[in-house]
Amino acid sequence: MRMMKAAVFRGPGRIVLDEKPVPTPGPGEALVKVTTTTICGTDIHILKGEYRVDPGRTIGHELVGTVAELGPGVNGIQVGQRVIAGAITPCGQCNFCLDGHQAQCTGHATGGWRFGNTIDGCQAEYVVVPFANANLAPVPDELSDEEVLMCPDIMSTGFGGAESGRIRIGDTVAVFAQGPIGLCATAGARLRGATRIFAVDGIDTRLDMARRLGADHLIDFHRADPVAEIMRETGGRGVDVAIEALGTQQTFESCLRVLKPGGILSSLGVYSGKLALPMDAFAAGLADQKIVTTLCPGGKERMRRLMNVIGARRVDLKPLVTHRFRLSDIEQAYELFGAQRDGVLKVAITP
Amino acid sequence: MRMMKAAVFRGPGRIVLDEKPVPTPGPGEALVKVTTTTICGTDIHILKGEYRVDPGRTIGHELVGTVAELGPGVNGIQVGQRVIAGAITPCGQCNFCLDGHQAQCTGHATGGWRFGNTIDGCQAEYVVVPFANANLAPVPDELSDEEVLMCPDIMSTGFGGAESGRIRIGDTVAVFAQGPIGLCATAGARLRGATRIFAVDGIDTRLDMARRLGADHLIDFHRADPVAEIMRETGGRGVDVAIEALGTQQTFESCLRVLKPGGILSSLGVYSGKLALPMDAFAAGLADQKIVTTLCPGGKERMRRLMNVIGARRVDLKPLVTHRFRLSDIEQAYELFGAQRDGVLKVAITP
Amino acid sequence: MRMMKAAVFRGPGRIVLDEKPVPTPGPGEALVKVTTTTICGTDIHILKGEYRVDPGRTIGHELVGTVAELGPGVNGIQVGQRVIAGAITPCGQCNFCLDGHQAQCTGHATGGWRFGNTIDGCQAEYVVVPFANANLAPVPDELSDEEVLMCPDIMSTGFGGAESGRIRIGDTVAVFAQGPIGLCATAGARLRGATRIFAVDGIDTRLDMARRLGADHLIDFHRADPVAEIMRETGGRGVDVAIEALGTQQTFESCLRVLKPGGILSSLGVYSGKLALPMDAFAAGLADQKIVTTLCPGGKERMRRLMNVIGARRVDLKPLVTHRFRLSDIEQAYELFGAQRDGVLKVAITP
Amino acid sequence: MRMMKAAVFRGPGRIVLDEKPVPTPGPGEALVKVTTTTICGTDIHILKGEYRVDPGRTIGHELVGTVAELGPGVNGIQVGQRVIAGAITPCGQCNFCLDGHQAQCTGHATGGWRFGNTIDGCQAEYVVVPFANANLAPVPDELSDEEVLMCPDIMSTGFGGAESGRIRIGDTVAVFAQGPIGLCATAGARLRGATRIFAVDGIDTRLDMARRLGADHLIDFHRADPVAEIMRETGGRGVDVAIEALGTQQTFESCLRVLKPGGILSSLGVYSGKLALPMDAFAAGLADQKIVTTLCPGGKERMRRLMNVIGARRVDLKPLVTHRFRLSDIEQAYELFGAQRDGVLKVAITP
Repeated sequence: MRMMKAAVFRGPGRIVLDEKPVPTPGPGEALVKVTTTTICGTDIHILKGEYRVDPGRTIGHELVGTVAELGPGVNGIQVGQRVIAGAITPCGQCNFCLDGHQAQCTGHATGGWRFGNTIDGCQAEYVVVPFANANLAPVPDELSDEEVLMCPDIMSTGFGGAESGRIRIGDTVAVFAQGPIGLCATAGARLRGATRIFAVDGIDTRLDMARRLGADHLIDFHRADPVAEIMRETGGRGVDVAIEALGTQQTFESCLRVLKPGGILSSLGVYSGKLALPMDAFAAGLADQKIVTTLCPGGKERMRRLMNVIGARRVDLKPLVTHRFRLSDIEQAYELFGAQRDGVLKVAITP
Repeated sequence: MRMMKAAVFRGPGRIVLDEKPVPTPGPGEALVKVTTTTICGTDIHILKGEYRVDPGRTIGHELVGTVAELGPGVNGIQVGQRVIAGAITPCGQCNFCLDGHQAQCTGHATGGWRFGNTIDGCQAEYVVVPFANANLAPVPDELSDEEVLMCPDIMSTGFGGAESGRIRIGDTVAVFAQGPIGLCATAGARLRGATRIFAVDGIDTRLDMARRLGADHLIDFHRADPVAEIMRETGGRGVDVAIEALGTQQTFESCLRVLKPGGILSSLGVYSGKLALPMDAFAAGLADQKIVTTLCPGGKERMRRLMNVIGARRVDLKPLVTHRFRLSDIEQAYELFGAQRDGVLKVAITP
Repeated sequence: MRMMKAAVFRGPGRIVLDEKPVPTPGPGEALVKVTTTTICGTDIHILKGEYRVDPGRTIGHELVGTVAELGPGVNGIQVGQRVIAGAITPCGQCNFCLDGHQAQCTGHATGGWRFGNTIDGCQAEYVVVPFANANLAPVPDELSDEEVLMCPDIMSTGFGGAESGRIRIGDTVAVFAQGPIGLCATAGARLRGATRIFAVDGIDTRLDMARRLGADHLIDFHRADPVAEIMRETGGRGVDVAIEALGTQQTFESCLRVLKPGGILSSLGVYSGKLALPMDAFAAGLADQKIVTTLCPGGKERMRRLMNVIGARRVDLKPLVTHRFRLSDIEQAYELFGAQRDGVLKVAITP
Repeated sequence: MRMMKAAVFRGPGRIVLDEKPVPTPGPGEALVKVTTTTICGTDIHILKGEYRVDPGRTIGHELVGTVAELGPGVNGIQVGQRVIAGAITPCGQCNFCLDGHQAQCTGHATGGWRFGNTIDGCQAEYVVVPFANANLAPVPDELSDEEVLMCPDIMSTGFGGAESGRIRIGDTVAVFAQGPIGLCATAGARLRGATRIFAVDGIDTRLDMARRLGADHLIDFHRADPVAEIMRETGGRGVDVAIEALGTQQTFESCLRVLKPGGILSSLGVYSGKLALPMDAFAAGLADQKIVTTLCPGGKERMRRLMNVIGARRVDLKPLVTHRFRLSDIEQAYELFGAQRDGVLKVAITP
């Protein structure tokens, strides 16, 4: 039995590098050798015990790799091909998938998010990709691993927030929080034609990055009240679309307070506990506002489109990779990323 | 100076029948002689001081009448013509209107809801209709006043809830609360092709009416837990669209708890204070759900379409009129309607 | 080797009942014993050599049956279960499917329409259903074979025409041609809330059926010019949505000529040769009209929704079955259906 | 009576500079002193007698100016303010406008395009703007006349083509013809996130401009067959959206032939005579393709949004102005523009 290294959740506070057997792909599955992966804020939630996964689970849902072995019934892809797969791996064949709600896939177990959650993930030397026909997206030769590393989750989620917000050419948009997902939401808003983008955060390097990705107006919440500033700058009108990318009561409520009547709040953050909708802000039913949530769209077609964006040089997300680690040092990577030290945005993990 | 009778708000607890001068229509306005009007739950909020309007304001926003006089610049309509106007009277020409958000009209003052709110309303012998070119909808001869009395508000709002919920053929829908608006939402859900409609209320006569308007499955919340029953009846799947038509924390939360992943909560109720979004129900961002609110769509084209529905006998809303009063007795009508006595759904008020 | 009877295309003019081996389902496939099937206008195009399929192909794409055998990797369905499958059998996993264009599925070969086209169809004792996880929809016990026989094609296509036309509550709609698909389009228009539906045809029994399925205004084109009559009846305004369900230059052009500015032409017919868009009708670019075509939506979720409609008794399509045959007599069925004799709408074929 | 100069249509072949009285604004109208205007391809159609307007009509529908006088009932704008108005001037209050089809406005006469068509246009010293409340959009001080000169028609139409085509992030798009409207469609496609844009034309300077505005791949139809090249470059898949910006059978048909199954053809050109839809390309009903046409969206909100784009420097359309004339020399401008000499794209005409 071949063995491999993997970052395994052992219980709250403990994600450790461990040895596991290299898995074998079943029908419709593919074994992929991981060439680059990364750590997500959600992994930190798992580490802290705030999001529950079974002990023993290999963590990680952001995958760049090469196909190592194909299970029965996988077509159109070759061993050796370089691929990515989305954080969410829809089966494409259940009622939810067929109805366009791939994130709710019930292909096996419930919910389309499987990697590092309900099945072993990709912070390992190898990972099995379920529903490989629907999920393996070939990476064009001219794109490096790091260039496409954000596609599986961060970029798909952030862009999804801009898309769910139905941003139109000429819109004014506010993006609250400029972590990796907020930064991608900012880039996505720009790419859909927003003409005024407010980026809110409290860390200078993140605001700088927001400007590089398309923000027009930076607001450091330590120095100014974002709600007051946005309302003043928009002449009291508010924004067409507000994107929440942190997951706190305060940012959620701020989004509502800067939203124009008839606007859309696109919510990306992961909240815990109860979230209060202040009815004076939500306009007591006297509005035609919308609140939409988005879960990272997956599937190989989504990945193809996102790689189109990277390949066409419409946006450059490589600078989000601020630190690099070997898989053997992944515990240090978790330590750095979990502490949000040294200006870390995203880490790249290679074998 | 000709005088007329009008139901005037004098302060919390006091809506009284009073004498006022018959108003004169200004440019773009029309004077309409009211032939039938009604009282809305919102009027009761005003009466109780829960929604603030200026003392001295004539109340009422549901209008059937005949054109008595045209101000300068009103075209395409004749004195004597029978008309309705929506509760919301968009100007059609401000930035919000031109962008399709007529409920947010800034034509004069802010907000498209003017009648009985920011201008004198139609619980009177005469009312001035602003932006008459955009708002006066001729009533076909074959339709009686009572047949079209629900169009201006109740029907437009309730149907709007079904439309904002984007109900599709084959959908399963739950409508929480079967007051006049909830009943119209039920009818609207049926008309858009929902194939299973759960109607929730605690009053038998309302549930009976819900069945007449298209509900398939009635739930009396005194006898069964609506959330448990809906989840059991849908095999744990939940509903595609949940419509909230009351405005309480409990019904809102119940909507979230019966909503399938990827579903839409269409909110029509008027809430007060803070509304808590229970994150375990709202799925902690791990969903692609939507919460949409709708404010009664107005304008003459909307009215024309709703009268099409009535005229084609697709739905009969006349039974919602359970009591009839003369304008001179409107204080008794308020007393009955405010107390929700005697199975009242809607009252018809005639001169 | 077990043998079965099958209606096989032998060349233009020849669809004959023949013997074939009972096929074996491969990975992801299911063998279904056909309990009821029918003949489609498209099959007649094949018979006449107007639509090209390979000689030797078993014809038929409308399936009701029971699961006889499951290939490897098929889940969630049991041998013996009663099922239907759509005329189009998407894989759910290719780029087109994942992007919501299931009719363009490239799962194997190109195009989602496979039965009786690129693989053997269901005018036989048994048929293999590809991508069974995505396509087998269990039939509720309370629905008979004939009640669901229209779901796989006729109903899905006709309703699809109403859906693609984005019919709204209060719309005026014209449906040109009331064959089986046009009749279903009429029913779909009604179910989406159209309040005035013009049904055009030249055969009395079809117009009668149109009325039963929801048409408000019948036009026999032998007695009146449909364009003139519709324009007169709509006061020169035209219809919001026109549905073409025949596939001729004349009906297509008539649709354009009764379409209001800003309206939608939903095209369901299968045209041959060149179709002329008369620019005076199409308004020379000076319009914001849309022409949309729809290919029968498939997949088990679509079938589930359509069976919801039948099960909820929102529409009754059983009367479309005007004649019944045994599979052994299918050549007579083709003869009758091809000649459109004896008021035939659809035939039911049983083993 | 004050007199002014105006370019007046006298009959086919004759648009001449003439004297006319300065008009007086009626109720809801505004008199605007024209500071910059331009000539449109449609004006050339009028000149040639291909599009019929009444002799005596002042031509021109692209307006930058300052408010000179307000008719009764015009609010929110001041005499002296610098403004633009769209080529289409919706009333905002008729049934079509209220239903979102402003181009079909029936505010007075039929059709929202009035300037230089059904009322006097803006190739003059002064012009009366109808429905001024809905149409006068203030120009921000920091934008020059030439910077916003394309907003009223060219930019609104071209961007409208990209919007009607519902271009998504990651789409591949082909724009046939790179005249002023095609160039704006190219810019609009880029702004909505298309990641591969094919620009087709036969003139080098236009192709160069297309690249500046965002095209990725230029095709000179003198040197290569655009259909073959696009199909080869897309690996036989075709484009997601094809935009027709010329109005000929050939470009229309080419659009269909490069369109992927399930794609959208967005048609902007003004065709004459009959347009043939080749059914082998339109896929004989066996597709779910769409053909949409767009008429230049108007109204002050649209103008505000387009000026947002210019003001945010998302696109620079000033280079489209290749030649400049005084109004007194407008006949030479017509001569140059009509002949498409000297690389002319657009001309700027000042008093």
